[in-house]
Amino acid sequence: MTFGERHFERGSAMKKVILIPDSFKGTLSSQEVCAVMEATIGARFPQAEVLSIPVADGGEGSVDAFLTALGGQKVFVPVCGPLGEEIQGFYGLLPGGGRAVIEMACCAGLPLVEGRKDPRRTTTYGVGQLILAALDQGVTEIYLGLGGSATNDGGCGGAAALGITFFDEKGEAFVPTGGTLGRIARIDTGGLTPLLQGVSLTVMCDITNPLYGETGAAFVFGPQKGADDACLRELDEGLRHLAAVIRRDLGVDVSTLPGGGAAGGMGAGMAAFLGAALTPGIQVVLEAVGFDGALQGADVVFTGEGRIDSQSLGGKAVIGVSRRAKKAGVPVIAVVGCMGQGFEGAYQEGVSAIFSINPRPEDFEEVRHHAGENLALTMENILRLWEISAFRQKNIRFD
Amino acid sequence: MTFGERHFERGSAMKKVILIPDSFKGTLSSQEVCAVMEATIGARFPQAEVLSIPVADGGEGSVDAFLTALGGQKVFVPVCGPLGEEIQGFYGLLPGGGRAVIEMACCAGLPLVEGRKDPRRTTTYGVGQLILAALDQGVTEIYLGLGGSATNDGGCGGAAALGITFFDEKGEAFVPTGGTLGRIARIDTGGLTPLLQGVSLTVMCDITNPLYGETGAAFVFGPQKGADDACLRELDEGLRHLAAVIRRDLGVDVSTLPGGGAAGGMGAGMAAFLGAALTPGIQVVLEAVGFDGALQGADVVFTGEGRIDSQSLGGKAVIGVSRRAKKAGVPVIAVVGCMGQGFEGAYQEGVSAIFSINPRPEDFEEVRHHAGENLALTMENILRLWEISAFRQKNIRFD
Repeated sequence: MTFGERHFERGSAMKKVILIPDSFKGTLSSQEVCAVMEATIGARFPQAEVLSIPVADGGEGSVDAFLTALGGQKVFVPVCGPLGEEIQGFYGLLPGGGRAVIEMACCAGLPLVEGRKDPRRTTTYGVGQLILAALDQGVTEIYLGLGGSATNDGGCGGAAALGITFFDEKGEAFVPTGGTLGRIARIDTGGLTPLLQGVSLTVMCDITNPLYGETGAAFVFGPQKGADDACLRELDEGLRHLAAVIRRDLGVDVSTLPGGGAAGGMGAGMAAFLGAALTPGIQVVLEAVGFDGALQGADVVFTGEGRIDSQSLGGKAVIGVSRRAKKAGVPVIAVVGCMGQGFEGAYQEGVSAIFSINPRPEDFEEVRHHAGENLALTMENILRLWEISAFRQKNIRFD
Repeated sequence: MTFGERHFERGSAMKKVILIPDSFKGTLSSQEVCAVMEATIGARFPQAEVLSIPVADGGEGSVDAFLTALGGQKVFVPVCGPLGEEIQGFYGLLPGGGRAVIEMACCAGLPLVEGRKDPRRTTTYGVGQLILAALDQGVTEIYLGLGGSATNDGGCGGAAALGITFFDEKGEAFVPTGGTLGRIARIDTGGLTPLLQGVSLTVMCDITNPLYGETGAAFVFGPQKGADDACLRELDEGLRHLAAVIRRDLGVDVSTLPGGGAAGGMGAGMAAFLGAALTPGIQVVLEAVGFDGALQGADVVFTGEGRIDSQSLGGKAVIGVSRRAKKAGVPVIAVVGCMGQGFEGAYQEGVSAIFSINPRPEDFEEVRHHAGENLALTMENILRLWEISAFRQKNIRFD
C-alpha cells in the first residue's frame, strides 16, 4: 500500500481521544500529564481530535486546570490575604460567563503564610471576596476548590465577606478566625448578599473528615498549619462551638457532615452559610466539562494518577472517569506511576488497561526526576500497540 | 450484543501468536517467560493458537528450550565429565530424528566442577561423545550450544572423542587439556569418524572473542573458570600454540576467528576440526524452528529479554526475531525487565512496541523476586489494550 493510504489508516485508528488525568503526586501536575500525552498522540495520530481535561483537585492550580480544559479567562481581584494583608487573588471565568472557578489556596493558602503560620489568626475572608467578585460578574454557578488552606476559621471569614454577621457576647460584630470562634455568640444571616440567590455553589472536596473531633479539621490538618497541641485543642473547641451556634441560629447541623472538616472547616461553613454542596472534585470536573457529552464518538479515554491501588479506587479521578466511560462504552487506558496492592479492582470499574511508566527497576527518588520522559515513552508504546492491533483488524500488512 | 458474539469477537482479535522470548537474566528462564505469556494469552484469548519458542542461548537449558519449542526427546548417554569421571550427559533428538541439539554445559559445564575448578585439567571429551552418540542415531544436523563451560582445551577433548589424534614430541598420542595444549606436536585428522560426512554442525555462539590474546578465551573467561594470573598466561600460550599447529597441520587459520574464543576455545576447535559454522544462537533457533514459516498468518509476535538497550541491539534475540517479523509484516511486541539507553533503536529493527514489567518504582533487588507476576500483569494489560483497540476498529461497543 502507498504512504498516502497508510497515512489515512493511521489517522483512522484513533480519531477522537479524551485525556483526563489526575496529577502524578510529587512529579507531574495534571496539566503536565496532559501536555505529554497530547504531544505523543499528536506525533503518532496527527489527525486525532484530542480533548485535554487536566483534573483539578481543588487545590493550587485548579483554576488553571479548568481554564485549560474549558477555556475562559483568569480574572484578578485584589482581596484580603490569610493574615489580613491585601493580595492579588483570582478566579476563573469559564466560557459563556455564567460559571466561575475559585481555588481558596490563592488567597488563603499555606504558601502565603510560609514562615508566618498561625491557624488562630488566618482568615478565609478573601475567599468570600472572590465569590462576591464572581457574583458581580453575573455568574450563576461557582465551583470552589478547597485544598492547601492555611486557615481554621470554619469558613466564617468567607461568610463575613458575603454579608453574614458574627456577634460576640457583648453584641459587637466581628470576623471570627480560628482563635476566636469560641467568642461567637450569635450569627445573623440577614445581610447575606442577595447576589447569591439562585446561584449554585459546589465545593470540590475529596476528604470526608468531619468538622471537629479526633478526625476533624483541627486535629488532622492543624499540625501542618502550624498548630501545637494546645492550639489544636483550642481550634477543635472553637469549631465545636461554631457548629453548636450554627445549629441553633441557622437550624443546620454540620457537626457530622462528611467533608465538613475540609480546609479548616471551610467545608462545613460553606454548607451551612451558603448551602453549598460538597462534591468529590472529579465529579465537579466531569460535570463542568460535560464529560458524558464529550464521550460521544470518542475512541478511547486516557486517564492516570501517581498511584493506583485499593485506596485510590474510592472516588478518585481514574475511577470517576472510568465509571462514566464504561456507561458510554468507551475504553479507558490508565497510565500510572505505581500499581499498588489491589489495583486490579479498577478493571471492574471500567478501566480497560493499566500501564505503569517505570522503564527500569529504580527507586522513586531516582525515577521522580524522569517522570515526564517515562510517561512519554510509555504513551508512545501504548499508541504503537493500539496502532498495530487496529491495523491487524483491518488486515493491513504491518511494516 | 450477546455474550456469544462477544466471545467470538474476542477470539478473533488474536488468532495466532508466536512467543519467542530470551531469558530475563537473573530472574526468569526463556521457558518461564513463555509459560507466563502462554497463561495470560490463554486466559484472554482461549481460541488463540499459541506457538511457544523459548530462545536457547547455547548454555544450560538450551536442549530443554529446543524440545519445548519443537518437541522431540531427550536422550541420556553416559559420557566423560569435565574431570574425566563418568557422568550422565544428554542430547535432544528433534522430531523426525534428523536433528540433534547438544549443550556442552551438560558434560563440561561449570556447575559440574563446583569446588574443583581447574581449567588446566578439564576436558570437552564428553561433548565429542555426545556428538558421536547423536551421529550414531543417524542425525544429519547438529546444533551445539557453547556456554557455561569449565574448560579451556580448545575443543581438543571433543575432537579426540571423534577420532582426531593429538601427538606429543615423542610421537605419543594423548588427549590435550588446557594445561597440555603446549605439548601438541602434531595433529592427525585421519581417524575422524566418517559418520560426520555430510553432517552439518552449527555452533551457537553469541560472543566474538578470538581464540587467544587479550580478548581471547583465557584472559576473558579464564578467571571465572578458576585460573589465576600465571595460569591465564599458560592457558593463553597453549591456545596460541594450538592455533599454530592447526594452521600447519590442517591448513586452517582460526587465530582471529570471531567467536573462536568461546567456551575455552571450543569455538575455534569445532570450526577447525569439524568445519562447524559459528552462528548467533538466535539465528540457529530461528532456522531450527522454521520461524519464517511460522510467521505466516501470525497476528503478533511476543518477544522479550531482561534488558533492552543499544548493546542488546547487536544480534540478540529481540532484534533477530524482529528483523524477520518485519520482513513478514508481522508486528512484534517486546516485553522487557529494563529499557536502557538507546532502546529506541529497536523500533527501526521491527519492534513495534516495548513494555517494561515494572509496576512500581523499585530497586532490582526488590523487583527480581516478582518478575513472574510483574510479567503476567504487564502481559494482561497489553492483551487488554490489544483487545480494545481491535474492538474499536470493528466498531464494537466496549463494555
